[in-house]
Amino acid sequence: MPTINDIAQKLGISKGTVSKALNNADDVSETLRKRVLETAVEIGYQKNRIRRNAPKKLCIIIENMDYKSPIGFGYDIVMGFRKLAVPDGWEVELVEMTAELQEQQSYDVFMLGNEYKGAFILGFSLTDPWMEELKTASTPAVLYDNYIQENPVVSYIGINNEEGFDMAVAYLKELGHTRIGYLGGAMESHVMKARYSAYLRAMEKNHLSIEKETIGYSYHISECTQKYLPVLLQHKVTAIICCHDALANAVMTHCAELGYRVPQDISVIGFDDASFSAYTIPPLTTIRQDRNALGRCGYYALTSLLNHTAISSLLLRAELVKRNSVDVAKQ
Amino acid sequence: MPTINDIAQKLGISKGTVSKALNNADDVSETLRKRVLETAVEIGYQKNRIRRNAPKKLCIIIENMDYKSPIGFGYDIVMGFRKLAVPDGWEVELVEMTAELQEQQSYDVFMLGNEYKGAFILGFSLTDPWMEELKTASTPAVLYDNYIQENPVVSYIGINNEEGFDMAVAYLKELGHTRIGYLGGAMESHVMKARYSAYLRAMEKNHLSIEKETIGYSYHISECTQKYLPVLLQHKVTAIICCHDALANAVMTHCAELGYRVPQDISVIGFDDASFSAYTIPPLTTIRQDRNALGRCGYYALTSLLNHTAISSLLLRAELVKRNSVDVAKQ
Repeated sequence: MPTINDIAQKLGISKGTVSKALNNADDVSETLRKRVLETAVEIGYQKNRIRRNAPKKLCIIIENMDYKSPIGFGYDIVMGFRKLAVPDGWEVELVEMTAELQEQQSYDVFMLGNEYKGAFILGFSLTDPWMEELKTASTPAVLYDNYIQENPVVSYIGINNEEGFDMAVAYLKELGHTRIGYLGGAMESHVMKARYSAYLRAMEKNHLSIEKETIGYSYHISECTQKYLPVLLQHKVTAIICCHDALANAVMTHCAELGYRVPQDISVIGFDDASFSAYTIPPLTTIRQDRNALGRCGYYALTSLLNHTAISSLLLRAELVKRNSVDVAKQ
Repeated sequence: MPTINDIAQKLGISKGTVSKALNNADDVSETLRKRVLETAVEIGYQKNRIRRNAPKKLCIIIENMDYKSPIGFGYDIVMGFRKLAVPDGWEVELVEMTAELQEQQSYDVFMLGNEYKGAFILGFSLTDPWMEELKTASTPAVLYDNYIQENPVVSYIGINNEEGFDMAVAYLKELGHTRIGYLGGAMESHVMKARYSAYLRAMEKNHLSIEKETIGYSYHISECTQKYLPVLLQHKVTAIICCHDALANAVMTHCAELGYRVPQDISVIGFDDASFSAYTIPPLTTIRQDRNALGRCGYYALTSLLNHTAISSLLLRAELVKRNSVDVAKQ
C-alpha cells in the first residue's frame, strides 16, 4: 500500500508537508495541496489512512435537482439516505455540483480532498465530465439513474422503468387504447434513454404498433407540447405516456388549449408521481417512484461497496398510481 | 385486517379450533389444519398475528443445488445469508424442495403453516409449480436467478450476466479470437435464457458474427459435448464460452479426446467459478459469482421486502477470473 512517504518522494517534498496538505493545514498553498492530492490519487494512496480519527464522512452530490424544499424531487431521496446513514454514525454532506466544478478537479481528488469515503450521486447527465472518470474511479459511488459498466466500486440504483411502462401500456390497452403515443426528454440522460426503450418494448410486448409520428422527445418541454403534441393528436393517438410528470401536466394544459378534453378525448400518464401530481387538473395518473426507498437503497448500495460487495444495479418496483387523467378509449 | 374470527365463520368452526390449527396443536387433524391454512391465505390473514411470541423465522428453500458440503454451490450462499440473518435474531431453516411438494400445497399456505415470514429461494426452474404462484403470492420471497414481474413482495437477485459475457467476449477478442462459440443449458431456466441472451448481446456489441452452428444448448452435458462440441469444432471456433463450469470442464476433457489441446488449439471459458475450477486441467478461466455476497444480498433484499421496500432486482458485478484455459487465437 502506498504511503505518505511515496507521495513525498514523488514530489520531492517532506513527509510533513504531504501530511499537512492532506489534512487541510492553513500553511500549505492551494496549488501544492492540489498537486499532493492528485499524486495521492495517481499512486493509489488510500484516504482512510489520512489520520486515525478522521471523520466518517459521506456526501450526496446533486445536480439539476431540487432537494431543499419538501416538494423538490430530491428531498425525500436525501431524507431516506440520511435516515439510515446518520444513525450509523456517518456525517452526510450535501454538495451542489456543476460541470465546471467537475472540470476543475477529478472525482477521486475531490473525494480524497474532502475526506469523503463514498458518494451518492443524483441528477448527472451523460455529458457530465465525471461520468467518464467514474468508469475507472477508485472511490465508491452510487449513481441514481445512471449506469457505469464493470467498475466494481460503482453501483446504479433506480426504478425498474420497463415494469413501469409495461403496467402503463397494459392498463391503457385494457381500457381499449391501441394508439398510444410517447413524449419524452432529450437522450442526453441515461434515464430518458431507458424510458424511451421501455416504451418501445412495452408497446411491442402488448402487440401495439409504433409509428414515428406518435413519438416525440426534446430537452425542452415547450418543444414537446408545441411541436410534437399537435402531430400526435393529428395521428389520432387516444393516449399519451410522458417521461415525467411536469411534461404530462404541460401536455394536459396544451390538450385543453387545442380543444381536447383529458381524459374524455385523450388519456395522459406521467412518470415519477411528483408532489404536484395529485393536484393537477385532472389529477394525474402516473408511474410512481418511491423516493424515500430510493434514498434508503442508495445508502445500502454505498455501504455494500464500502464493504467490498460489488453491487452492479439495484432496481425498485415501479407502481402505477391511478388518478383521473385516464379513461376508456374514445371510439 | 381479517381475524381468526373471519376464518372461523367462513369454515363454520370455533375460534379456538382455528387458533389451535394455526398453532400446530396436536388435537387438530391434518385435513382440518390444511383447510384452515388455505382459508387464512385466501382471505389475507396475516401470519404475524398468529401469536405474540411467535418465533422470528425465515427459510431458505433449495432445489437442485448442493449446499451441505463446503464445495457445494449453495454452501456459501447459505452461509452469507445466515451470517447476517442470525445476528439479527432470525431463525433460519433450510427446506429441501421438490415439484411434488409444491403441488401438495401452495407457497403462501406452506409459509403460513410453518410461520416463516419470508423465503430465500434457490435453484428453481421455470417449470416449478410455485413459480406461477409467486406472481400473486403475498409472503415475501427473494429468488436467486429467477425473475417474477411486478409482484411487490418478490425480488430477484443474481449476477449481472450481461457484464460477465461482455468481459469474456472482449477478453477473447483482445487475444485475437473472432470465432467464439457458446454451449449452454436447457432454456427451462431463467438464468440459462439470460446467459444465452447475454452471449448473443456481447457478440453483437463486439461486432463478432454469430452462426447457428457454433451454438448448442441442452439439459444434458453429454449432449453438449457429444452432439454440439464436434459441430463447433468443425465450424472452426477458436474459443468456447460455457454457461457453467461443470460443462466447461467436460468440454475441455472432450476437446482433448478429439485431439484439440486447451488452450493452444482452443480456448474455453466457464461461468460461476465453482470450487473445482481452479483445479481442472488446465485451470479454468471463468466468470465468477461471489456466492457469499449473493447470500448477503439475498438477506438484504428479504429484509427490505419485510419493511415494505419493493426491490425488483439486485444484481452483483460479475468478475472475470483469468487462469490457463485461454490463450491467443491460433492462426
